[in-house]
Amino acid sequence: MTLLQALNWRYAAKRMNGQKVSQEKIDNILEAIRLSASSVGLQPYTILVVSDPVLREKMRPVANNQPQIVEASHVLVFAAWENITAEHVEEYINHVATVRSQPEESLSGFKNSLLRMIKSRTQEENFNWATRQAYLALGTGLTAAAVEKVDASPMEGFNAAALDELLQLKEKGLRSVSLLALGYRDPEKDSLAQARKVRRSKEELFIELS
Amino acid sequence: MTLLQALNWRYAAKRMNGQKVSQEKIDNILEAIRLSASSVGLQPYTILVVSDPVLREKMRPVANNQPQIVEASHVLVFAAWENITAEHVEEYINHVATVRSQPEESLSGFKNSLLRMIKSRTQEENFNWATRQAYLALGTGLTAAAVEKVDASPMEGFNAAALDELLQLKEKGLRSVSLLALGYRDPEKDSLAQARKVRRSKEELFIELS
Repeated sequence: MTLLQALNWRYAAKRMNGQKVSQEKIDNILEAIRLSASSVGLQPYTILVVSDPVLREKMRPVANNQPQIVEASHVLVFAAWENITAEHVEEYINHVATVRSQPEESLSGFKNSLLRMIKSRTQEENFNWATRQAYLALGTGLTAAAVEKVDASPMEGFNAAALDELLQLKEKGLRSVSLLALGYRDPEKDSLAQARKVRRSKEELFIELS
Repeated sequence: MTLLQALNWRYAAKRMNGQKVSQEKIDNILEAIRLSASSVGLQPYTILVVSDPVLREKMRPVANNQPQIVEASHVLVFAAWENITAEHVEEYINHVATVRSQPEESLSGFKNSLLRMIKSRTQEENFNWATRQAYLALGTGLTAAAVEKVDASPMEGFNAAALDELLQLKEKGLRSVSLLALGYRDPEKDSLAQARKVRRSKEELFIELS
């Protein structure tokens, strides 16, 4: 199956059948998310991987009672860093230096530009920026799920403050921004399973300047 | 090549060699972007596809003189809708009804929920939401480029207001949010071409709640 066939196959399943997704497939989807591009490489987000059915039962009312929360195999919670601090930058630069076996001093120009960048913005602007990066990773994860023939339903319809409280995200410096239910579609219960995909046409979505 | 191999192969090329990317590969990358998931299906963004070398020469100073702008084959400009209006919702609902051959009245509940959603937010909040969706599509496009073995360099380091003026985006109701240079890496000029990929470890990026 080509990537385009996989993307044509996928849709945001509203009902899932409860079947477990194999650990191998979950691992491949998570690894794709981990490898996702991220501005300046910072990856300013954390992803909670929720398989516990009891916890998902508690999450459901916070997410408009959407059935995928409990009918999925796993629910990923994409959470952006609430604040981006100088400590985050320090840690990141240290990590780059370690992975690439180079002295931290050789990264001082890069480090200073990162510090200037985060200080030039308000906390909310940094959070919005972190959220965009989380969505980039979400796009990577959705594509990887389609390639694995795993249904993936991204969800914004939830009470972020209530979910943050339930999962104690504030204490971790995180704010939930999107959910991604992973599982298998239930075509009998989901009227959209057979519906034609609706996308803006090429002519509308793209403007060619050649 | 598996998707994970493709994602391991990719990096944000800082220098490209000027080689053209075939129309077939460009078409595949654009089609993946077109098929990308988008909240409520709205796709509140437009993508400018710039191959014209003269125009890219003009874009370069606006983008911190980054050489990929001219060394790439194509530069995609992801532009989010500046404002989301009732007309956008009307058009979208009309499009869904047409594609799925169903009466518009059967979509009135969905339509009203979309109208409530956009009206409950400020224009800036709608723009931020549209930008997140554009980043989701950017993640899909980056993944598709890697699968096509096309180098893709996402860029935020540009003067958005100046680029919007150059490309007359304001008149189109758009604001540029990210660039994506597509082309082929130049390993001799790009010191990062051989550098080890730096990513947060699995243990750091994910929190398992099972």
